[in-house]
Amino acid sequence: MAAPSRLLIRGGRVVNDDFSQVADVLLEDGVVRALGRDLLPPGGAPAGLRVLDAAGKLVLPGGIDTHTHLQFPFMGSRSSDDFHTGTKVKEEMKILTRDKGVNSFKMFMAYKDLYMLKDVELYTAFSQCKEIGAVAQVHAENGDLIAEGVKKMLSLGITGPEGHELCRPEAVEAEATLRAITIASAVNCPLYIVHVMSKSAAKVIADARRDGKVVYGEPIAASLGTDGTHYWNKEWHHAAHYVMGPPLRPDPSTPDFLMNLLANGDLTTTGTDHCTFNTCQKALGKDDFTKIPNGVNGVEDRMSVIWEKGVHNGKMDENQFVAVTSTNAAKIFNLYPRKGRIAVGSDADIVIWDPKATRTISAKTHHQAVNFNIFEGMVCHGVPLVTISRGKVVYEAGVFNVAAGDGRFIPRKPFAEYVYKRIQQRDQTCTPTPVEREPYKGEVVTLKARGTEEDSTAGTGKQAHP
Amino acid sequence: MAAPSRLLIRGGRVVNDDFSQVADVLLEDGVVRALGRDLLPPGGAPAGLRVLDAAGKLVLPGGIDTHTHLQFPFMGSRSSDDFHTGTKVKEEMKILTRDKGVNSFKMFMAYKDLYMLKDVELYTAFSQCKEIGAVAQVHAENGDLIAEGVKKMLSLGITGPEGHELCRPEAVEAEATLRAITIASAVNCPLYIVHVMSKSAAKVIADARRDGKVVYGEPIAASLGTDGTHYWNKEWHHAAHYVMGPPLRPDPSTPDFLMNLLANGDLTTTGTDHCTFNTCQKALGKDDFTKIPNGVNGVEDRMSVIWEKGVHNGKMDENQFVAVTSTNAAKIFNLYPRKGRIAVGSDADIVIWDPKATRTISAKTHHQAVNFNIFEGMVCHGVPLVTISRGKVVYEAGVFNVAAGDGRFIPRKPFAEYVYKRIQQRDQTCTPTPVEREPYKGEVVTLKARGTEEDSTAGTGKQAHP
Amino acid sequence: MAAPSRLLIRGGRVVNDDFSQVADVLLEDGVVRALGRDLLPPGGAPAGLRVLDAAGKLVLPGGIDTHTHLQFPFMGSRSSDDFHTGTKVKEEMKILTRDKGVNSFKMFMAYKDLYMLKDVELYTAFSQCKEIGAVAQVHAENGDLIAEGVKKMLSLGITGPEGHELCRPEAVEAEATLRAITIASAVNCPLYIVHVMSKSAAKVIADARRDGKVVYGEPIAASLGTDGTHYWNKEWHHAAHYVMGPPLRPDPSTPDFLMNLLANGDLTTTGTDHCTFNTCQKALGKDDFTKIPNGVNGVEDRMSVIWEKGVHNGKMDENQFVAVTSTNAAKIFNLYPRKGRIAVGSDADIVIWDPKATRTISAKTHHQAVNFNIFEGMVCHGVPLVTISRGKVVYEAGVFNVAAGDGRFIPRKPFAEYVYKRIQQRDQTCTPTPVEREPYKGEVVTLKARGTEEDSTAGTGKQAHP
Amino acid sequence: MAAPSRLLIRGGRVVNDDFSQVADVLLEDGVVRALGRDLLPPGGAPAGLRVLDAAGKLVLPGGIDTHTHLQFPFMGSRSSDDFHTGTKVKEEMKILTRDKGVNSFKMFMAYKDLYMLKDVELYTAFSQCKEIGAVAQVHAENGDLIAEGVKKMLSLGITGPEGHELCRPEAVEAEATLRAITIASAVNCPLYIVHVMSKSAAKVIADARRDGKVVYGEPIAASLGTDGTHYWNKEWHHAAHYVMGPPLRPDPSTPDFLMNLLANGDLTTTGTDHCTFNTCQKALGKDDFTKIPNGVNGVEDRMSVIWEKGVHNGKMDENQFVAVTSTNAAKIFNLYPRKGRIAVGSDADIVIWDPKATRTISAKTHHQAVNFNIFEGMVCHGVPLVTISRGKVVYEAGVFNVAAGDGRFIPRKPFAEYVYKRIQQRDQTCTPTPVEREPYKGEVVTLKARGTEEDSTAGTGKQAHP
Repeated sequence: MAAPSRLLIRGGRVVNDDFSQVADVLLEDGVVRALGRDLLPPGGAPAGLRVLDAAGKLVLPGGIDTHTHLQFPFMGSRSSDDFHTGTKVKEEMKILTRDKGVNSFKMFMAYKDLYMLKDVELYTAFSQCKEIGAVAQVHAENGDLIAEGVKKMLSLGITGPEGHELCRPEAVEAEATLRAITIASAVNCPLYIVHVMSKSAAKVIADARRDGKVVYGEPIAASLGTDGTHYWNKEWHHAAHYVMGPPLRPDPSTPDFLMNLLANGDLTTTGTDHCTFNTCQKALGKDDFTKIPNGVNGVEDRMSVIWEKGVHNGKMDENQFVAVTSTNAAKIFNLYPRKGRIAVGSDADIVIWDPKATRTISAKTHHQAVNFNIFEGMVCHGVPLVTISRGKVVYEAGVFNVAAGDGRFIPRKPFAEYVYKRIQQRDQTCTPTPVEREPYKGEVVTLKARGTEEDSTAGTGKQAHP
Repeated sequence: MAAPSRLLIRGGRVVNDDFSQVADVLLEDGVVRALGRDLLPPGGAPAGLRVLDAAGKLVLPGGIDTHTHLQFPFMGSRSSDDFHTGTKVKEEMKILTRDKGVNSFKMFMAYKDLYMLKDVELYTAFSQCKEIGAVAQVHAENGDLIAEGVKKMLSLGITGPEGHELCRPEAVEAEATLRAITIASAVNCPLYIVHVMSKSAAKVIADARRDGKVVYGEPIAASLGTDGTHYWNKEWHHAAHYVMGPPLRPDPSTPDFLMNLLANGDLTTTGTDHCTFNTCQKALGKDDFTKIPNGVNGVEDRMSVIWEKGVHNGKMDENQFVAVTSTNAAKIFNLYPRKGRIAVGSDADIVIWDPKATRTISAKTHHQAVNFNIFEGMVCHGVPLVTISRGKVVYEAGVFNVAAGDGRFIPRKPFAEYVYKRIQQRDQTCTPTPVEREPYKGEVVTLKARGTEEDSTAGTGKQAHP
Repeated sequence: MAAPSRLLIRGGRVVNDDFSQVADVLLEDGVVRALGRDLLPPGGAPAGLRVLDAAGKLVLPGGIDTHTHLQFPFMGSRSSDDFHTGTKVKEEMKILTRDKGVNSFKMFMAYKDLYMLKDVELYTAFSQCKEIGAVAQVHAENGDLIAEGVKKMLSLGITGPEGHELCRPEAVEAEATLRAITIASAVNCPLYIVHVMSKSAAKVIADARRDGKVVYGEPIAASLGTDGTHYWNKEWHHAAHYVMGPPLRPDPSTPDFLMNLLANGDLTTTGTDHCTFNTCQKALGKDDFTKIPNGVNGVEDRMSVIWEKGVHNGKMDENQFVAVTSTNAAKIFNLYPRKGRIAVGSDADIVIWDPKATRTISAKTHHQAVNFNIFEGMVCHGVPLVTISRGKVVYEAGVFNVAAGDGRFIPRKPFAEYVYKRIQQRDQTCTPTPVEREPYKGEVVTLKARGTEEDSTAGTGKQAHP
Repeated sequence: MAAPSRLLIRGGRVVNDDFSQVADVLLEDGVVRALGRDLLPPGGAPAGLRVLDAAGKLVLPGGIDTHTHLQFPFMGSRSSDDFHTGTKVKEEMKILTRDKGVNSFKMFMAYKDLYMLKDVELYTAFSQCKEIGAVAQVHAENGDLIAEGVKKMLSLGITGPEGHELCRPEAVEAEATLRAITIASAVNCPLYIVHVMSKSAAKVIADARRDGKVVYGEPIAASLGTDGTHYWNKEWHHAAHYVMGPPLRPDPSTPDFLMNLLANGDLTTTGTDHCTFNTCQKALGKDDFTKIPNGVNGVEDRMSVIWEKGVHNGKMDENQFVAVTSTNAAKIFNLYPRKGRIAVGSDADIVIWDPKATRTISAKTHHQAVNFNIFEGMVCHGVPLVTISRGKVVYEAGVFNVAAGDGRFIPRKPFAEYVYKRIQQRDQTCTPTPVEREPYKGEVVTLKARGTEEDSTAGTGKQAHP
């Protein structure tokens, strides 16, 4: 029997990023058809209409995980984070954006000799992103310093997971973050920093925004919900399961700091960088932390962790929760208001959320094919009851109802206004113009004292005397 | 007739960096022989003793210009700033330090394709400096961004001196400053930033010091006494005479900001980066700012400018003036207390200073072979009356008495305690050690999904999953 | 003849704070009845429907001036800023909020011996605000320091308008701002800082928000569009017309700094503190700056100034412009989404805006009964064409069509969710609880050495030894 | 038998704040008579000369505890911290300074209804300090907020030591610190903040110094060596022994932060605020934290704690250790170079220090009449071997040799140059002057609309319109 083609979510508190209201939501053909009070006809639900009672519950726009490494069914969108771009892809980038609906590209400042771009390559890539209206994303860590740090740790006999953090402490992340922002700003290109893991990197982003830069920062469930003290855990497998890049930070005040910035708008979106490995896989690096596969879980627990640490703790309200888990991402990746908002005409991606229920996160009960959970034991207020993707119930009462291939890629247009309007205006009004002067008419003397390289330095940044 | 071999400076206020006292100073054989009250025998000066009356005047340790590009007579010291090092000099650096008394090396982050070092080269150079106990100096500007900025300005038709600042705004300096500090900190190497020109770069240094980094910043007479609004001057030759790298900044609050940090100890020393060109030489770049020879005057006016803007304006007292013009440099370059202090046994490098006299800086009256002065018209309280170098009067009443070759290089020992004591202690007590753990005994599974590169990534910073 | 009771704004770009779309807007009975494409029936406008062509124009929610001192017709709301509260009004505050729809109260930290509240009175007033769900507003300047500053300036013979700024420099504003935030935070009460005039006060607010405080800052047209260098103008009347409290700041980078924070969300709303006096009135203080009536113009030019400095200069986009001129204020004062948004059901307060037209602000052409304009000569892109208040055209083509008394007070409910949801959650989850301990069973010795005051200090904060 | 009147400290490393050297030190008649190599005559020590072998040891200037509450023998100086001043002491302050050698006064912003001064009283007291050349000291906590916080905690049933911190969190300290600095700056009076306990207060001080303010901060042994997590200790007596005001902070990164600022020069001196009570005395507050006597130990362990956390950990070198434990205090309180330096002519207050020896701090072994030590169990590198006060050995090999009354008050002169030179210069060159203008000749209109209070507001800071 076919699933009912229409759904009525009844009596819930519909939460958008700007305000909340008690209303019914009618879903039809994968979109929101109506929103208002008392949408159910007096005689009860007609055939083909399933009614979900949401009284006392919240009705939220489906979360958008901006940063994951697999296709998960109810995600409305995903960034092209597996598309590792270099400067040689220039033409390809244009095609992907114009024809394939990809409007963001991720660049690496880490992973030397593998993915790492040099500054001048970043400049070129950002220029290209801007030309085609894409959002430039960066993994911000100084790859050279990591490579040197790795050598140093191994030479000190540090082979365990703690070496992973010690070889790339937060200064390595903060430095790269400032460098990326400086380069993007020189290009006047918007920038999106993925997986912000440290207070100092977050502060760099917040300061840049205060200075007018168009930059967005994305902390992830892991950096918001746990910390890097686990790398010093005496159980090797425990420590190893927290290994990801950039690493979690040993400073235990990091999660609160990042959550405050998310609440305040200095950080914008939340992802997971979800990419899990089980203990046997992690054990590849049992004698050498550089061989531990990088990745932690998160996608299943992201919303609960953010609700608990953000909303339950009073750092943000439910509307800001929607902003950072859904709306802001939809705006940046140019899917708004089709995604990221519950409104007439928007896609029927919805979560029914019980803000009063609690659950305890555990590897024993989670739906992920991995035997460890980095949030093990965390009691979370706020539990998803029903998840609806494009009008279909894909999760309900603990049971997933998804077939492989149900995920769908949403083509996105470039030049998202949310991101690009200021950029384009600045090009128009802030571009410098020459000072008008009388031509110099005096004598010109060639320098001899300091070599003759001067004549060949024009246009290259190589001036006469350093 | 030979000059008297002994000098008695009588009744002046002797100013050291820690306190001032009225005292006589007896100089003999190029050193301070005595310091105290009433050193003149009752019968008057014996033969061979010249008495200089300093009543009502200040007696200061000779200024140490940490950063100039020529040998100037009364300088006690100079950095090896024309020694442009790359990574290939490793052995040579050791020899210079061990055998030649050079204990600082300057590295460039600007001047792409000419002097610019990559991050990994900086890491190597800093490591080498640390090994041999030298002070690593950097010119901190992002050379890649300058090169791109130059292209951009020329493409916009901006060929005048204002293009010089626009192609390398202060973010370019601040970014490189943070990067240099991050790299030096990874090495645990002390770092000295030459010619700090901007508020944002100075703030990076001050914040790093607050965070415990061993880093020193050197603003120069130009950045303390004038600003970059001159690049927009309608007279080409006027604007061109301010061209230096990094450029002066258009923000007019820059000099006060830098002086406050110098007063407070966040910045440490003062230089000039003195390197002058006359208008005809500057005119090489009349049609293209990249061809304007980089350099401004400063060495003659440094102390007056700092006195006026610092001491006269109440930002620092006379003792801190001595610290930032002489003592701190002597400590960093391991010449203290031979240089940088007036004490029994120290070198007889002394300036007699009239804090109440005023003079007006002007190209018409200065002693520099150039037809322009960037401080033109500045009224300065505080005038040097007599300059004594190694016991000889080299300047007096407006007249220089120096022969070519009078300058002398002072060999300096490495591992200056002022700089290196903390560094070495940190190596001893702050180096991380491995966490002791039971060996992992479980199964190990080779990853297949994400390629086989994992096995080859150990020790390189290339981890499994980005 | 009666005005048409229905209006159709046709083909404009409807700008809300979250996104923009080209749509028709149908207004009826003072509210927005419909929003969508092609709302005009094929046969043309029926009787009673006036059609305003807005093609190529922007359709904005009516601006909400959060801070003015007169009733101006198209304002959707106003704060109770003339209601000067002290601690004796406690019961009165409750009544005003419960029965009269006043949900914000303004407290003064300046105006010693007149309105100034002491810290403990602020604590009480904030506590009361929180209890009744109102928004506490403060004028943040240290009144004691102003009083002393006034004495000092007069004793120095400084009687001109420059004395107004010199007696209350920005540190006086920043100090009070931090103090107000600290007190409000101790109470867990939301706080709204009116007329933010300086970089340092704005930074205090931004830092507090970064730290999780529920605090809002309101710069005004004057602080965003001009600066305090005018107090040093050689024409007395010119200087006097800029006198307001807190004063404009001499630092010319202030307006840009404030606008960046408004763009970034660190500052939230914009007001004018509009309160004008003509030159003859200002001249009351011709011999003594303390007698110059405080107040500047702004209400007419607020939106143009913010558009020019904010949107035209590329600091914010049109959506953020709507946020800071209308939406955010509506949320804080609990009028959203009735005010602050163009949506079906919202009030028909609308401005049709031509973003391409320009006008030059001048006292010669403005509609204010005063002979001076502090923005004189400013060329503004962005001109209001039509203003609609509750469905009626009140301004069109340069002509106002308002009768006295057309302004209307909108009763507002307390406990605005936008402001109070986090506050209430924090009360629930962040209130500390006692540590459980075994009772102390040892000996207790009375102190004698330091007096006997200890016994009387319990519960008063007077501990034994200071 | 009388003690030898002369002492020769032989072969030690003499450490001053500017550099270290191996030298002998000859003490005679309570002062340093000679300093140099090989001061011992070839034939051995003559009668009356005791030789102390200091080979391999450090010879340090006697520590100056800037902040203690009892007379301790080897202290060179102490501030008048028990002299609680109010505004009525004006004449008395002058007498104390002129005739009694007191050159600092401590003011309280805490302890409401007891010692707390209002802002206007602080302004007056600071003005008086400046007039007589004294150093104004403040205990910076907002007394009103403490009083309210106490009520709140008790109403929540929190009566244990944790309530002591909860009622006066660090924002209460930081707020008062900024306020004190703002008031002192308005007066142009130097300011000294006693017992800096928190990161945020320290940051306020450091930022103010960066901004050119003449302000000094004094962390204490307790805030540098332990933290406020102890207030949550399950043993009541343990928690109670940490009670002092301002309290220690729960943030465990506080000590490192403060030490970094001390190393960097942002904080200047170190005290102890030593004032101990034993458990039976502390137990006065067993049912009410407000009755716990405020005070912790520290004087005996100050130098060891700072050496361990500062020097041993590589944050500062031995010279900076001397600066923050002795020299800086001597300069501020105008005792330098008589105190704070080992030089010919200075007082013979000396500590012989073994930097390699270690000891474990414990109440079981300390010399303080109290049964608890807040640093219990801390292993300290750096142990004092011999303490010499005015030429006499007062401590040696674990034994004190001091008679009651051996402490001596050193009269100090006002207007310490280290503190006041900049202050006086600013008065001369930075005082504003009136703008010269043509008198206003136009009409003057009396305002009626807003009341008639204008005429009476001149000179009081009460302007016409708020």
